[in-house]
Amino acid sequence: MTRTEAESADTPTRVAVSTVIFGLRHLPGSDATCVVLPLVRRTRDPHEGQWALPGGWLGERENLEVAASRTLAETTALAPSYLEQLYAFGDVDRSPTRVVSIVYWALVREDEMSSSQEGAQENVAWFTATELPELAFDHRLIVDYALWRLRNKVGYSRIAHGLLADEFTLAELREVYEAILGRRLDPANFRRQVENSGTLIPTDRFRTGSHRPARLYRYNQDVELAERGPLEVR
Amino acid sequence: MTRTEAESADTPTRVAVSTVIFGLRHLPGSDATCVVLPLVRRTRDPHEGQWALPGGWLGERENLEVAASRTLAETTALAPSYLEQLYAFGDVDRSPTRVVSIVYWALVREDEMSSSQEGAQENVAWFTATELPELAFDHRLIVDYALWRLRNKVGYSRIAHGLLADEFTLAELREVYEAILGRRLDPANFRRQVENSGTLIPTDRFRTGSHRPARLYRYNQDVELAERGPLEVR
Repeated sequence: MTRTEAESADTPTRVAVSTVIFGLRHLPGSDATCVVLPLVRRTRDPHEGQWALPGGWLGERENLEVAASRTLAETTALAPSYLEQLYAFGDVDRSPTRVVSIVYWALVREDEMSSSQEGAQENVAWFTATELPELAFDHRLIVDYALWRLRNKVGYSRIAHGLLADEFTLAELREVYEAILGRRLDPANFRRQVENSGTLIPTDRFRTGSHRPARLYRYNQDVELAERGPLEVR
Repeated sequence: MTRTEAESADTPTRVAVSTVIFGLRHLPGSDATCVVLPLVRRTRDPHEGQWALPGGWLGERENLEVAASRTLAETTALAPSYLEQLYAFGDVDRSPTRVVSIVYWALVREDEMSSSQEGAQENVAWFTATELPELAFDHRLIVDYALWRLRNKVGYSRIAHGLLADEFTLAELREVYEAILGRRLDPANFRRQVENSGTLIPTDRFRTGSHRPARLYRYNQDVELAERGPLEVR
């Protein structure tokens, strides 16, 4: 990436927003689930042809979170139920012109993902988080940071709910944790920990199918999805 | 605060950085310690005469964290040992012109504070976090959010170290927690929890004085001050 003195003197700092959206996908022909995210193929320079996070410029009269939602909808047709600011990336050399990117991250449930996939947005594809192509700009660092935040947060919040339907079995909840943490968890230990946490409410319903019936649970709505402190009330 | 159509059409979005710096102060004539922070009195519009967070504009060829350190030094002469990005504030109406502020937060030890106080920076004063004056812009929301982050983080990281000398007694460490959390902690319980955490290393030295000698501890350097994940290696 090269930059001339003239170029950067002419271009003031611009503010962009980007969003890292995580979903889960069951791998066909296996019982493994993995974390996936949508990327957009760039159709212009810089980095034409490379994959990048969905995003765009901050509108003059647009709040940051609104801009994140708008650019996400425009590029991927996704409208995730949970959106949180991740970090502002602003290194001088992250782009040929000076761009400060305010990055959000979001989770989508499987039903929200498929509506986007049916829409078949041009230049959008879902990738497994552990098998990403080369990414434009510093987007690989951004994805790595978002994954780290996701793994951390799943330990101390009920954020896994953002990836599940309203009612779920303990096995389904465990699969979410396993996919995020990238390792298997002991089913009996997991059940004990979750039951002791007070975050789940058992329902009277059961999932039936090829396995023996499994009780459906839902999250206790009195516990915050993820505490955001004073920013909650904005 | 009013804004005309013409004004905002003329002014593109600008990027600023601000820093919330927390220190501790022993209240004279009491054994209580409280969280304090420095504010700068604005010498120009908007909000002339009101108190605001130290900060300034992002330089064209300046990384975000560098800008935070520079503007902090220029306004308060402080150079804290710990600086972390807090949040980007960018609501359309937070300032008469469009300003996105990338906010950092920092901790200073008592010895770092006093060098600033002796320097007697003009228009800078330290305030108790629970007794703030009216603040300019949305800086009150920013301080509230930073305080919330501080209280949260003290629970799961060794961030209290940023407010202590290299060696300290358990009573001194407890005072830091009490000041941040805003409540008294049971000394015996506190000692047990800290000793079980594995984050402290006892030294052979003792604090002597008017009380009976108290052992000095230091933090285990193998435990991160606060995990920052992939951003650590930048």
